[in-house]
Amino acid sequence: MARNPKHDCLFEPIQIGPKTMKNRFYQVPHCIGAGSEKPGTQAANRGMKAEGGWGACNTEYCSISPESDDTHRVSARIWDEGDVINLRHMNDELHKHGCLGGVEMWYGGQHAPNLESRAIPRGPTSGASEFEYLTYAHECDEDDLKDLIRTYAEAAKRSEQAGFDIVYVYGGHSYLPLQFLSPFHNKRTDGYGGSFENRARFWIESLAAVKEAVGDNCAIATRFAIDTLYGPGGVETGDDGLKFVELVAKEGILDLWDVNIGDIAEWGEDAGPSRFYKAGHQRPWTNEVKNLCKIPVLGVSRETSADDMAARINAGELDIIGAARPSIADPFLPNKIDEGRVEDVRECIGCNVCISRWEIGGPPMVCTQNATANEEYRRGWHPEKFSKVDSEDSVLVVGAGPAGMETARVLGERGYDVHLREAGAEVGGCVNNIMKYPGLSEWARLTTYRQIQLDKLKNVEVHTGVGEMTADDVMEYGADKVVIATGAKWSTNGTSSVTHDPIEGLDASLPYICTPDQIFEGKEVGQKVLILDADGYYTGVSMAEMMADEGKDVQLITSLGSVAPYTHFTLEAPNLHRMMYEKGIHEKTLHWCEKVEEGVATIYYLYRDGYVRDSGPTLGKMPRKVGTDVIKMEFDTLIAITERVPQDKLFRELKARKSEWEENEIQGVYAAGDCYAPGLLADSIFSGHRIAREFESGNPQLAQPWIRERQVWGHETFPKLDDRETQG
Amino acid sequence: MARNPKHDCLFEPIQIGPKTMKNRFYQVPHCIGAGSEKPGTQAANRGMKAEGGWGACNTEYCSISPESDDTHRVSARIWDEGDVINLRHMNDELHKHGCLGGVEMWYGGQHAPNLESRAIPRGPTSGASEFEYLTYAHECDEDDLKDLIRTYAEAAKRSEQAGFDIVYVYGGHSYLPLQFLSPFHNKRTDGYGGSFENRARFWIESLAAVKEAVGDNCAIATRFAIDTLYGPGGVETGDDGLKFVELVAKEGILDLWDVNIGDIAEWGEDAGPSRFYKAGHQRPWTNEVKNLCKIPVLGVSRETSADDMAARINAGELDIIGAARPSIADPFLPNKIDEGRVEDVRECIGCNVCISRWEIGGPPMVCTQNATANEEYRRGWHPEKFSKVDSEDSVLVVGAGPAGMETARVLGERGYDVHLREAGAEVGGCVNNIMKYPGLSEWARLTTYRQIQLDKLKNVEVHTGVGEMTADDVMEYGADKVVIATGAKWSTNGTSSVTHDPIEGLDASLPYICTPDQIFEGKEVGQKVLILDADGYYTGVSMAEMMADEGKDVQLITSLGSVAPYTHFTLEAPNLHRMMYEKGIHEKTLHWCEKVEEGVATIYYLYRDGYVRDSGPTLGKMPRKVGTDVIKMEFDTLIAITERVPQDKLFRELKARKSEWEENEIQGVYAAGDCYAPGLLADSIFSGHRIAREFESGNPQLAQPWIRERQVWGHETFPKLDDRETQG
Repeated sequence: MARNPKHDCLFEPIQIGPKTMKNRFYQVPHCIGAGSEKPGTQAANRGMKAEGGWGACNTEYCSISPESDDTHRVSARIWDEGDVINLRHMNDELHKHGCLGGVEMWYGGQHAPNLESRAIPRGPTSGASEFEYLTYAHECDEDDLKDLIRTYAEAAKRSEQAGFDIVYVYGGHSYLPLQFLSPFHNKRTDGYGGSFENRARFWIESLAAVKEAVGDNCAIATRFAIDTLYGPGGVETGDDGLKFVELVAKEGILDLWDVNIGDIAEWGEDAGPSRFYKAGHQRPWTNEVKNLCKIPVLGVSRETSADDMAARINAGELDIIGAARPSIADPFLPNKIDEGRVEDVRECIGCNVCISRWEIGGPPMVCTQNATANEEYRRGWHPEKFSKVDSEDSVLVVGAGPAGMETARVLGERGYDVHLREAGAEVGGCVNNIMKYPGLSEWARLTTYRQIQLDKLKNVEVHTGVGEMTADDVMEYGADKVVIATGAKWSTNGTSSVTHDPIEGLDASLPYICTPDQIFEGKEVGQKVLILDADGYYTGVSMAEMMADEGKDVQLITSLGSVAPYTHFTLEAPNLHRMMYEKGIHEKTLHWCEKVEEGVATIYYLYRDGYVRDSGPTLGKMPRKVGTDVIKMEFDTLIAITERVPQDKLFRELKARKSEWEENEIQGVYAAGDCYAPGLLADSIFSGHRIAREFESGNPQLAQPWIRERQVWGHETFPKLDDRETQG
Repeated sequence: MARNPKHDCLFEPIQIGPKTMKNRFYQVPHCIGAGSEKPGTQAANRGMKAEGGWGACNTEYCSISPESDDTHRVSARIWDEGDVINLRHMNDELHKHGCLGGVEMWYGGQHAPNLESRAIPRGPTSGASEFEYLTYAHECDEDDLKDLIRTYAEAAKRSEQAGFDIVYVYGGHSYLPLQFLSPFHNKRTDGYGGSFENRARFWIESLAAVKEAVGDNCAIATRFAIDTLYGPGGVETGDDGLKFVELVAKEGILDLWDVNIGDIAEWGEDAGPSRFYKAGHQRPWTNEVKNLCKIPVLGVSRETSADDMAARINAGELDIIGAARPSIADPFLPNKIDEGRVEDVRECIGCNVCISRWEIGGPPMVCTQNATANEEYRRGWHPEKFSKVDSEDSVLVVGAGPAGMETARVLGERGYDVHLREAGAEVGGCVNNIMKYPGLSEWARLTTYRQIQLDKLKNVEVHTGVGEMTADDVMEYGADKVVIATGAKWSTNGTSSVTHDPIEGLDASLPYICTPDQIFEGKEVGQKVLILDADGYYTGVSMAEMMADEGKDVQLITSLGSVAPYTHFTLEAPNLHRMMYEKGIHEKTLHWCEKVEEGVATIYYLYRDGYVRDSGPTLGKMPRKVGTDVIKMEFDTLIAITERVPQDKLFRELKARKSEWEENEIQGVYAAGDCYAPGLLADSIFSGHRIAREFESGNPQLAQPWIRERQVWGHETFPKLDDRETQG
């Protein structure tokens, strides 16, 4: 198909300093867990986006010195020759597709924990980081200031050697240059503190030094939080924010503005989760920049709609559409727009699970929508290409939730004859419930994307409303292979990680006890709601909000140290705290329930037993004092969010009847998603995707090995990027 | 000197299956952050202990399959040929010193998050992990059980190839075999669940398979939590614990027992912090094992006293002294005992900062006592050897806290003429206060070890009670080089990471406001105590306990998400929760103070402003609703633990007078420890140690590069262990 002419403006080239970008699609710096130490992953992940049409792709934040070491989190590093060599592979991949490579040079200042390097970061002012407790910077003296500016310039030279086209001085997210600019951090009384000009000096001098070092060959960019959202105590758009844009314009030391908002302690204000922020939420701030400068301006806002992107360009708000999360969910977003296939775009759902892996520190990034994200190198997966099978084999997939739909989609792309059968009236599985929680409507994109793709696959039939299949039904269905994807349900007896046993009196067949599944089925909930949450992610807090929105009085008890601790990693936590406070949802952490009676739950503090062990009389018994303190809490309805139970009856029955497979011409039965083991939606979708990719292996239930990027001493066995075949 | 004959029993060889261990010093498995991916660090760290006299050294826990991937935490892995090659270097190093190498084969079951591999762990029963929320295992069917047992056996064969002498099936800390044994986890109703014999079956079959695979050449060991400390719901010593020992004895499938207690969710009951557990605390449980078996038994209990170790052997409690933390603090502990130099042993203080880095996940292990720990390879540091200087240079070190003492000690070992001058009456600095907190008396070992070593160095003079030195004093002192180590003090005006500004009305010169420093100086504290804690580690909670012990009413307010969050990583948190509950210390998390008046503090919830931003009228302003809710809290004394302030006046004055250095024959002035930037005690000591090691570099204030273990694509530059010189 042809491109919609409305979108032509997105494909016009643009000059950025000495470089030309071929279109307006720009992958801003974002973390993938590869850094400089996994050159294959780094090159292949960014390279896939270049293949998918992006005009420029950046590294994640890239440290310029061991004094700025974010371990346990993974940044890129441009510290030495080895980093130059490793990062060069990324640029080589990008350049094959006419895509520019950018490096976001980072010095963390007060926020750099330096747990690997054990160095001490330097900053404008001594004092503890508001992001990393127990982390203090050394307050720069004049020698330090010169040394840091030189460090930026030298890192820029190494960046140029590594083949980068765009070199950043990273001042977003309250890293070093912004720490100088913002009065929140900068308490200096010398020429680098006090007045706006003084606070701006370090940044200006760093940019000038970098421009001087590499400006002839590289475009100089800066990422700038134009508003730190602290009010007058920090940087505000209408004050220091736009003044700094004007000052830089006057100095003529910049080729590209990458503007955003917020700081690092609450960077969910920038990388806003869809629960709180829809696409375009940064526009009120960033729209102001273009009026004040002649160089290109880019901004992000999780844009996935080509119409919206084009509108922003046409309205003169931005020159370039920056994207991190949309480029992860769909590396081929630009090409799909170019080809007039906007309905094929796999839209980011804004769950921020990608970000959670950076926040946890160490693991590779994953994406809920795109199971191939970060698997380009190590498993050789291409998001849009699939190895075709020359097979007459038919596959029955039971259950059209996220795992079942993904399994059917990938098997369908690969050429299998697939029947996807869903007991219920609609496809979508658990997502049909989750999307009803406050703020989570965009998560429905998990279903709509797959539905559209399945509709296009002529070799896949989707049957809904077929009721639950029995083992006999499956045996007699006539499929050569079977994948069970029947999901999970919430425990109905209160079993949880706390005791691995049911809670006395907790039985969801009673009228005053509900599971989330029952609530979505319409079970009645009283006025006074008590939620038991041992899960740790969105369900408990979302249910609490949904109930509060219905006017209920809500109290949430959790066995964990905070409500929904995983939302700290998805950047939802601060606003969830605010939401709970505003909506009057009460919480009790580190508590659990030992007994439920009609209207009353017996709650206890997990650490109610003393900390000194009594010496016991017999063989190795030294019990703690037995704690018996309890709190009696009244409720009309108790909602039990204690543990998920795999709906694996069908799978286990089929496995138990293995001896009958041959007579029924069944070659294999596998399980995908929550019915094998409950996990994140990202895990479910990945699980189905992987089984479908590896369907011809001896046992697709268990994963094939992947390439581990590591040194092997005296035995170099890593295939390089070009030495190995990408699947498809 | 000669060995004390009392300790001879520690040096008798002992047979372990087909292997002979040369003495009774055994480094049990413990994490260092190297795994199989950093073979240099792994080989050099364990190799240093072999050089120091240990009879056997183990890897950290070593995963046998990608289904057991603990990322973000770092385990070793024996998944493939590359791991065999990498881990072999460790064994080659150990064998040079006649030390056995052991591998702790690990499958995490329900507790394996698999964030890198994205595989699904299998376990006895489905259900959420009590250690890793959001992690579920797949409940094994018969195929799975066979597959897992085969996985152990195959990993054992790879371990043998890698040169290991001792091969573990790891069942401590509630990993897979213990999950089968313990009714807490195992809810099966088939032949692998229910009765003791059924629950023991998986472990027995795994041991038998491993014995069959490698038992001729390797000793077979198991780590067993003989009591999970859950009472009858788990494994108890007097029941399943000793029954399992007897059963294994009957089967004859084991060569070595490594017994401990506890689980993984509260493994501070095993690796007990000194705050709660002194050396030998596991004896009531583990002493029972030897009576029931003929094979050697080892146990751990953070033993650092040679007398205690010998007594345990002689009493027939253990055959072998297992140690993790004591071997980190002093890799040369066995040799020092052997040489009759027990006063030179650098005793573990039980702070568990080593463990904190594993818990954080990713960073290399560090040790508070031993700055060279994990620096053996990458910086070439030897704990007992120092490159000697042929120099007449004299060095003045100002301040005899931990950083100053370490600087003076290392410079002294290196041959410098050192004066260490302390204003106060005693050496020790901040440790003199810290050791007075409840439970922290062992931290005084930081001082005593250094004091003993300094006393032995003829070229180091320690001057105490000299009062504060001025810049003039230093200029005129006559030293060639100067290191300032004047520490940090707690802020007296309430400045913290929350606002980076003072708190209105908070002034520690007022009689009703104290800092910790003032309290140790004797400032009076009233009955009703309000503690403001923005620090995050031991100070706030220790102060609260100290005050509660004095009979005060104590309330602690912290800006952080939990009280003393860092103690989660040091395994102190669970018992600190219990202590606070037992002693009636009230807490309020995520709150801070906006104003202090006599007797009343104005406290607010950090997230009191709403979560929806109002649209603002002008340039990019979209403020939240202004939250004004406050809580008025009464107090007699407010203790402000808000932020540490470097005592850097002397250092900055000297730097500002750089032009006068030459005339005073001063070549350089450097700062070590908290006066450069406040940090952990481990950081302070490391900082002084590093400066002293790199004292002749251009600028020892900034660290020299170290070897980064990583792959560099197409450019193999890593020095191998034998290609490079260890310093000294």
